[in-house]
Amino acid sequence: MSAIPHDFVRKTAQLSEEVTRPFPNSRKVYVSGSRPDLRVPMREVSLTPTQTNQGSEENPPIPVYDTSGPYTDPAAQIDLLAGLPDIRSGWIAERADTDLLDGPTSAFGRARQQDPALAHLRFEHLRIPRRAKPGRTVTQMHYARRGIITPEMEYVAIRENLRLDALRADPRYRKLLRQHRGHNFGATLPELITPEFVRDELARGRAIIPANINHPELEPMIIGRNFRVKINTNIGNSALTSSIAEEVEKMVWSARWGGDTLMDLSTGKHIHETREWILRNAPMPIGTVPIYQALEKVDGRPEELTWELMRDTLIEQAEQGVDYFTIHAGVLLRYVPLTAERLTGIVSRGGSILAKWCLAHHQENFLYTHFEEICEIMQAYDVAFSLGDGLRPGSLADANDAAQFAELTTLGELTQIAWKHDVQVMIEGPGHVPLQLVQENVTKELTDCYEAPFYTLGPIVTDIAPAYDHITSGMGAANIGWYGTAMLCYVTPKEHLGLPNKEDVRAGIITYKIAAHAADLAKGLPGAQLQDNALSKARFEFRWDDQFNLSLDPERAREYHDVTLPHQSHKVAHFCSMCGPHFCSMKITQDVREAAAVEAGLREKAREFRDEGAAIYKAV
Amino acid sequence: MSAIPHDFVRKTAQLSEEVTRPFPNSRKVYVSGSRPDLRVPMREVSLTPTQTNQGSEENPPIPVYDTSGPYTDPAAQIDLLAGLPDIRSGWIAERADTDLLDGPTSAFGRARQQDPALAHLRFEHLRIPRRAKPGRTVTQMHYARRGIITPEMEYVAIRENLRLDALRADPRYRKLLRQHRGHNFGATLPELITPEFVRDELARGRAIIPANINHPELEPMIIGRNFRVKINTNIGNSALTSSIAEEVEKMVWSARWGGDTLMDLSTGKHIHETREWILRNAPMPIGTVPIYQALEKVDGRPEELTWELMRDTLIEQAEQGVDYFTIHAGVLLRYVPLTAERLTGIVSRGGSILAKWCLAHHQENFLYTHFEEICEIMQAYDVAFSLGDGLRPGSLADANDAAQFAELTTLGELTQIAWKHDVQVMIEGPGHVPLQLVQENVTKELTDCYEAPFYTLGPIVTDIAPAYDHITSGMGAANIGWYGTAMLCYVTPKEHLGLPNKEDVRAGIITYKIAAHAADLAKGLPGAQLQDNALSKARFEFRWDDQFNLSLDPERAREYHDVTLPHQSHKVAHFCSMCGPHFCSMKITQDVREAAAVEAGLREKAREFRDEGAAIYKAV
Repeated sequence: MSAIPHDFVRKTAQLSEEVTRPFPNSRKVYVSGSRPDLRVPMREVSLTPTQTNQGSEENPPIPVYDTSGPYTDPAAQIDLLAGLPDIRSGWIAERADTDLLDGPTSAFGRARQQDPALAHLRFEHLRIPRRAKPGRTVTQMHYARRGIITPEMEYVAIRENLRLDALRADPRYRKLLRQHRGHNFGATLPELITPEFVRDELARGRAIIPANINHPELEPMIIGRNFRVKINTNIGNSALTSSIAEEVEKMVWSARWGGDTLMDLSTGKHIHETREWILRNAPMPIGTVPIYQALEKVDGRPEELTWELMRDTLIEQAEQGVDYFTIHAGVLLRYVPLTAERLTGIVSRGGSILAKWCLAHHQENFLYTHFEEICEIMQAYDVAFSLGDGLRPGSLADANDAAQFAELTTLGELTQIAWKHDVQVMIEGPGHVPLQLVQENVTKELTDCYEAPFYTLGPIVTDIAPAYDHITSGMGAANIGWYGTAMLCYVTPKEHLGLPNKEDVRAGIITYKIAAHAADLAKGLPGAQLQDNALSKARFEFRWDDQFNLSLDPERAREYHDVTLPHQSHKVAHFCSMCGPHFCSMKITQDVREAAAVEAGLREKAREFRDEGAAIYKAV
Repeated sequence: MSAIPHDFVRKTAQLSEEVTRPFPNSRKVYVSGSRPDLRVPMREVSLTPTQTNQGSEENPPIPVYDTSGPYTDPAAQIDLLAGLPDIRSGWIAERADTDLLDGPTSAFGRARQQDPALAHLRFEHLRIPRRAKPGRTVTQMHYARRGIITPEMEYVAIRENLRLDALRADPRYRKLLRQHRGHNFGATLPELITPEFVRDELARGRAIIPANINHPELEPMIIGRNFRVKINTNIGNSALTSSIAEEVEKMVWSARWGGDTLMDLSTGKHIHETREWILRNAPMPIGTVPIYQALEKVDGRPEELTWELMRDTLIEQAEQGVDYFTIHAGVLLRYVPLTAERLTGIVSRGGSILAKWCLAHHQENFLYTHFEEICEIMQAYDVAFSLGDGLRPGSLADANDAAQFAELTTLGELTQIAWKHDVQVMIEGPGHVPLQLVQENVTKELTDCYEAPFYTLGPIVTDIAPAYDHITSGMGAANIGWYGTAMLCYVTPKEHLGLPNKEDVRAGIITYKIAAHAADLAKGLPGAQLQDNALSKARFEFRWDDQFNLSLDPERAREYHDVTLPHQSHKVAHFCSMCGPHFCSMKITQDVREAAAVEAGLREKAREFRDEGAAIYKAV
């Protein structure tokens, strides 16, 4: 291998400051688990005190779920050439059910590693791949079903709780923890997530922890409708644009704003090398659509795809550490004609590739006929299935149609097969769906796919807003998350129009964080309203900096405020730019509150008196 | 009056080109009613033909609901100094129930007209105000209840239908008019809106046509849950920013992107003059919150407000032509203490002003005690009530609480009083509401306020996304519109942070057009899916220009596309920037469709044979 000269290094040895700068007034905290090597990262936002007539009153810090990895930790040493620290290899090794291989076992993986022409692109510190010992299964589902609580399970339990147990015991949080009763559509949201609850959910197949044994850098997270709703982001170069450097920076950018998982949908050259760079530096699970790469290997001719080629690609990617694969095994030959009368046919790339293959050969989809063999690969590395909805609707007109729902029943059948092999499964969903048909998607998925976690793209609720499809789909996403979808795949403003740039990615992620959080609130996830309450209190008390710092995008909030009122003195001003200094409803309200407090005080006394009286009366 | 020197004229005699340029491939069409002076504007988008193997296939033009007024009509002469053409004075005069006055009858209106210091700001062609003859009522509700179908009623019926009757009779639209069954939560959505249906809805109070007799320039529109969901936009200068010129341009900008109504929330100097310029040039109904101006008149001291001052302000604005007034008559003295324990107290400006007045005087809200007198003013000009929700929640924590719902029952009581006077009413609603509590707002409003149209601000479904509150609230808006809200008040990205600029206004409007349209689709409004279907067909057929032109924001859609693929040749390319030329799912699908068509053809033949056979068998 040559030395590392290449412009990739020059460009990315330093990530740009905007993707790594710490969030304002925030610090990274690590909550320890039952063993010293189990340290779960969170972000904690410090607040300023409230000034009252009686003096200063403390506002306690607010913990925030943190997907940003070590990148926002000023104490962390970031070296993209070395990759992120390995946090799971010890856990994996001590299970003693895997072997370290001599090197990649896929033909393609070996060829790429040996190709001197790729040296300038190659990640230097390639990991030695690991695989289950013969006859062993190394999936989180497998352990869960055997009653084993892995460190990964404990990790996600701690991560989901966001220290809620400690906050509940702390009187400073009492009022801030109040929230409305949710409507959860049959989900189970315990008061506190325990490792045992995580294990049970995994064992039932109602949740997954995507965590390939070859991606030990990842910070485990869980996807299931009885946990926080998650969001997925997509990056990927196409033949027309992008470089490895940009893709790695986009991955870190995605982590920064709240992407819980990330799919690398690259279709250009150097997919293999790009993926390696991403995986070695990714704190989140990485997903791919292996058929995209397989298609590259046959120069874009779907009819030339073979099972052998696909198999080699699956192994290649599994040994790099990909955490979940989108597999379009539900696109059956007999379903293809169901799409012929659609307004927009087949719009999933993977779906159309397989439909073309099926028709060209007039044979059943080879991913379906070889599904058990795919399971055997997945179980040896713990790659989770994301069963692709290749027949999802591409327009409102085609929503919830026969083709879509036929495929869904097949995905259910495949779920059962995967579970037989202890392979984790989630199910992909649409797409384009008008609001009134959104819930049916969840209901059917839960029934047909036995409560395997649902993972939907949007859905977009009208087709007439290209350039605003993050918003259009955010409306569908909030609802489908509420109804029980476990993970929402983001959509950017450029969906249907072009490739997203960094600002598009940010807009897409924040929109989806809003949707996911709205869903958590609506379901009544314990503690979900804490951040809202803390921010609203700050807003009401004109603690502008606290309002910015508690928001999903502190930088944009501050920037928008400063357009109208740029001076620092305005950050503590008891008015805002909407109404000006002499006409402020919040200021008037504070007067009202003081006046009303007198009356309320009297009423409260009266109530206490009544209550006590009633109690005595009852005691008699 | 001095000549018209002032810089206002220099600035606005020409609106900027970006607010008036016609939409691409669109033409303004006017559909005539039963009389020659009844011409209803619509926009019609022309499309390019589809290229098939069998040659070229026409795509018929798509009509679009058009709020932009004459500004986007290249044939119209726009002269802001003269105001828009008068389209309703003939209709009003022929009803012979109004008098032309000698001039303004409000003390303030007269004073402003006579103040030479204001000459440089004053709109030159002041209209002579009109008022009901003594003892007469001139509201659309009044006519409706007497069985009279006014030209305004016929106008909105034609406008709502968007030529649906003609399209249904035209075979070119057959497939494009297909749509999903809606779930309408008890709304009544007739297959075609008739003038008689409009009359009946107005008579029942289930819809309103805000149309002051002193605003004859407006193009009538209707607000009610059995019609298209509408959106309101807000403009307004504050003490800190803005000029008259900017406000007029913002009004035209709002009309351009789809604002159905507009509230002028100005609080600075020259409110009266600004309003005149806006009204004379506004094709949409204009609303105000008169208490804001009343407060200016007492130098911002709520406790100095009096009924006499308020009365003069109502008359002043009614005679200028304001179409609806937000009146916070439901903020009762006894409700104020209910807000004391809230996280964010009272956040409505109007609500806080009145709460402060009530507490300062320890008297009942003078808008409540003088409500019948207000009705008498409203009925003499046909100003509609927008009964304000002064106690709406300002945070999730305060949603659906006792204060909010107490006020709502009072708004219901006031609705009955207004209806007794034949005054049109809509009811304002929140605000900040988590998703699972949104529907209760609509249900309660419909019950407590006897199905008067509901008009809500958002609601925002989480508090943690300042800078993205158009999106946060758009999610709530889509849902509340679906559940039965008649009009959605937009929110811009700068809500909670600052005053919106033009791009913020555009983002807010498009977001709310999406929400309103999503709600129409979900309710199953007949014809609602036409534009979606036409756009999706264009998308699937790679007719890029048609896709842009059919979208809610054609300019932004084109711009986003062109960032990645700038050349005109790409507008007809059979691929897009997301996947590149050799890897396009839509291209693959077209191949699939051709192959599948063969099979489908065979199946269809078989089905026909079976169906016919079955029919014969039954006949026997």
